[in-house]
Amino acid sequence: MTQPDSEGQILIGPASYGKSEVRLVKVARTTPRHEIHDLNVSIALEGDFVAAYERGENAGLLATDTMRNVVYALAKEHPLDSVESFALALARHYLASSPSVTRATVRIVAYPWSRIEVGGVGHDHAFVRGAGERTASVSASEEQAQVEAGLDKLLILKTTESGWEGYHFDKYTTLPETNDRILATILTASWTYEPREAIDFNAVWEGARARILAAFTDHYSPSVQNTLYRMGKAVLETYPEVRRIRFSLPNKHHLRYNLEPFGLANDNEIFHVSSEPFGLIEGTVERRP
Amino acid sequence: MTQPDSEGQILIGPASYGKSEVRLVKVARTTPRHEIHDLNVSIALEGDFVAAYERGENAGLLATDTMRNVVYALAKEHPLDSVESFALALARHYLASSPSVTRATVRIVAYPWSRIEVGGVGHDHAFVRGAGERTASVSASEEQAQVEAGLDKLLILKTTESGWEGYHFDKYTTLPETNDRILATILTASWTYEPREAIDFNAVWEGARARILAAFTDHYSPSVQNTLYRMGKAVLETYPEVRRIRFSLPNKHHLRYNLEPFGLANDNEIFHVSSEPFGLIEGTVERRP
Amino acid sequence: MTQPDSEGQILIGPASYGKSEVRLVKVARTTPRHEIHDLNVSIALEGDFVAAYERGENAGLLATDTMRNVVYALAKEHPLDSVESFALALARHYLASSPSVTRATVRIVAYPWSRIEVGGVGHDHAFVRGAGERTASVSASEEQAQVEAGLDKLLILKTTESGWEGYHFDKYTTLPETNDRILATILTASWTYEPREAIDFNAVWEGARARILAAFTDHYSPSVQNTLYRMGKAVLETYPEVRRIRFSLPNKHHLRYNLEPFGLANDNEIFHVSSEPFGLIEGTVERRP
Amino acid sequence: MTQPDSEGQILIGPASYGKSEVRLVKVARTTPRHEIHDLNVSIALEGDFVAAYERGENAGLLATDTMRNVVYALAKEHPLDSVESFALALARHYLASSPSVTRATVRIVAYPWSRIEVGGVGHDHAFVRGAGERTASVSASEEQAQVEAGLDKLLILKTTESGWEGYHFDKYTTLPETNDRILATILTASWTYEPREAIDFNAVWEGARARILAAFTDHYSPSVQNTLYRMGKAVLETYPEVRRIRFSLPNKHHLRYNLEPFGLANDNEIFHVSSEPFGLIEGTVERRP
Repeated sequence: MTQPDSEGQILIGPASYGKSEVRLVKVARTTPRHEIHDLNVSIALEGDFVAAYERGENAGLLATDTMRNVVYALAKEHPLDSVESFALALARHYLASSPSVTRATVRIVAYPWSRIEVGGVGHDHAFVRGAGERTASVSASEEQAQVEAGLDKLLILKTTESGWEGYHFDKYTTLPETNDRILATILTASWTYEPREAIDFNAVWEGARARILAAFTDHYSPSVQNTLYRMGKAVLETYPEVRRIRFSLPNKHHLRYNLEPFGLANDNEIFHVSSEPFGLIEGTVERRP
Repeated sequence: MTQPDSEGQILIGPASYGKSEVRLVKVARTTPRHEIHDLNVSIALEGDFVAAYERGENAGLLATDTMRNVVYALAKEHPLDSVESFALALARHYLASSPSVTRATVRIVAYPWSRIEVGGVGHDHAFVRGAGERTASVSASEEQAQVEAGLDKLLILKTTESGWEGYHFDKYTTLPETNDRILATILTASWTYEPREAIDFNAVWEGARARILAAFTDHYSPSVQNTLYRMGKAVLETYPEVRRIRFSLPNKHHLRYNLEPFGLANDNEIFHVSSEPFGLIEGTVERRP
Repeated sequence: MTQPDSEGQILIGPASYGKSEVRLVKVARTTPRHEIHDLNVSIALEGDFVAAYERGENAGLLATDTMRNVVYALAKEHPLDSVESFALALARHYLASSPSVTRATVRIVAYPWSRIEVGGVGHDHAFVRGAGERTASVSASEEQAQVEAGLDKLLILKTTESGWEGYHFDKYTTLPETNDRILATILTASWTYEPREAIDFNAVWEGARARILAAFTDHYSPSVQNTLYRMGKAVLETYPEVRRIRFSLPNKHHLRYNLEPFGLANDNEIFHVSSEPFGLIEGTVERRP
Repeated sequence: MTQPDSEGQILIGPASYGKSEVRLVKVARTTPRHEIHDLNVSIALEGDFVAAYERGENAGLLATDTMRNVVYALAKEHPLDSVESFALALARHYLASSPSVTRATVRIVAYPWSRIEVGGVGHDHAFVRGAGERTASVSASEEQAQVEAGLDKLLILKTTESGWEGYHFDKYTTLPETNDRILATILTASWTYEPREAIDFNAVWEGARARILAAFTDHYSPSVQNTLYRMGKAVLETYPEVRRIRFSLPNKHHLRYNLEPFGLANDNEIFHVSSEPFGLIEGTVERRP
């Protein structure tokens, strides 16, 4: 079963294995007013797996099926007070549960559910799913655990106060300048926490989301790049426990439709939305070291 | 270019052609407080296309590119007071614009955007996209236009007050009965209006959505089937202008995870969410003729 | 648990329920040269479900979980000589297994796998998945079973011998005519068999696919509509056991990119591929009654 | 328009911008036997963009629309003899076209098309799309260009000669060992070339694909991990111009369906295919430094 490289010249390098898309719902039902946690958990373990990869010896490997069981078993006992704390508990478990693992990374996507309103009152046990996702990621070694949190799949749009002017022109440039366009993106943000105790993950998440949305609205945007920086700066200025924040901002182009052939004016009213291709602006905003 | 069937024994039967996924955004910007309409329009035309299909003669065909132009041109002049009225205007235009067309069907998906809240106030021109979609469909001939409206991609879930008992057992039945399970679905509903003048499409849409959500919550659900009927009945009882309503309700199974091997109880707290396979319950609720 | 409409004026109309996306792989391993069947099965049952929908009485309902068990159990004993015969066996089973069911529809998607070639020889038990899907659908009542078969998700493209000219012009027409364009589609076809015994489903499927592809290539295409008709006619002329055939042909537009601003000619060499919006041409080709 | 951080304590860090999903088709039509190149190109530029991000000054930015124009304009003049050489040409263009860019990364996905066979002969200008994708990525600075190539979305499967035994057991382990299971994955591989002149990219790509597929079949697989290593080793042993190779191998679980309740044996014949959750095995195989 084993077939090591006879010369030992070809080696396994950086590697990981784990379980992806573990779909957990936990219902807190100690009172008639239920709470729901709807999570998508993915685990990746790194360590010394040479025997497994190069020689087919599995003794140092945890079955990914076991990783899945752990998600459900720990969810039973964990309060799930925040996705970050649950990701920390999972990562520490995997790190402790196998001698050859030196780093455990746990990523969680939390889907948002809010109570169905009936007669203006939120229902006790009936929910409707909202848009956007909350994300958390913990990467833990024996020495340290790095915690990240973020937003994903949040569609935002401004109908004005955005432009694109003064850019570099060369022989392949045909795009006209504009000082009034639609700015639309599917926002992904994730920020890294300083290694501190006692961070209120839920409060920071809510606050960072509000700061990002407010910063999206509070200025004339000369470029996605500048708006990205402003959104990051807003978060860093408010939350000293955040070390840096990264954004991925696809530019969902809204192109003014040409109505001239039909004798109609189009004063930034009628747009064609195009999904391919798209601009993609990515960047990290961070504190001066 | 033409190659008719020499015997005339092989014919074109029911056929349609059109443009799909025309993505239109209209910004109403007559005041600083902008409104946004974000639509996905699809058009299908039926009629006498024998010459085109069988003989390659295009004179009776409208280019699908022209259909696209029409969406943008008519959007400029139409108030977009409701998606239903815009679909009606489009369908009537296509019906009138070609002699060989006898039926025009226009389907619209409207994506929901709400204002970004900054300091508790909705912003004038910045928006965030919500979950779920509003749909409308108009199928018009010279004699009549049938209007349908609906909801799509609305995820709803109950953590209790749902069961599945007393069903037919045969030799292939292994599922245990339960009187307490999670009920979750991705709701699609569409209702057909009576052919009346002066329907307030927006009011009915909001009201029907609210009635459906309330009916989802107001009873112990013995089956998806019964809950489907109750949701439909709630709409029909409230809105005499609705002739019938159709639902498509995939049963998104939430399976209680077996924690016994780990010495843990699971009193309907910890669930595995499964996307394949899924039950699919579909049905129409209608008035007695 | 039951709450019938007190007036009996609101009724359940056309309805069905079943299981979708049952994913079955069967490996025939009686010899070292294995065969694989990779199927996605969906079941929908119709019948008299008034008691279940209107009154919450489940005694006449088969659990969709039971339907799933049946797929796997019957697959064990069925030779799977064709997807059509397996769909027939399943449909007949569901029809017989519940007194209130009057029609059972079984849809199967078969994913194509071919043997991995090693040194020019197909491997005994290692496979690579190909493109496109084979589909089958059986809708059976006690009196009759209708069998359909087809192709899905087959991308085909011609780089020339296609045009679009002579179509209807109106005030919204801006598209220029062309006698040389790329024609590309994602082909879906499904044909209905005459109610005969002893159809060789596999031979017809292979032959119909070949006829459709050959007909796609054998003429200058004046429109998607005419090519649709020709492909259908080719199948009907070859296979008398086919009663009619339906196509759904999205027109995947390939737009000549404007290179003039860069001083370059573009003699139908350089194209932008656009996925939204798309033309959609659908039609049935059938025998004269 | 500019709003620098007054203290200069919050900075833009690693960042890039570019155009994604530029869909190019080039038809080589110098003879009646056309060739087709169907590419999806994405570009990301890195450099000194502080003025743009922090101060909203666009003079150093290339419009992503210009990047798109470049793809089409250069495609006209480039022979497209390999996707790697085209990616190199594009990356070098972007690097040279703006003073503030220090690294240009161009990723290309090539979709496979083969000729439609009519009467056993490949057609001159009609094509059918196959499965799997060829990928290339070039990351170029002024000093150096790193070239990667690979495969994506290639589904492969073995019906036997795969097992999973002898792994670590702990209190959360419930999975039984097996020495006969289905092994199935959606293969992604990408390898990095040594910085050499005159690599025959097409020959290596074809050869590496064949070596990977052969290595997938040639042994009893004790784990995905070991098979990953063997596939990588096979490529590195054959191609000295390849420095390292990385795989991402989701484990598409095929679970033996329990037929005992129905009195049926299941000797590894009948499987349920599950898409969530999935094991994910990733790793790099490389030469000893």
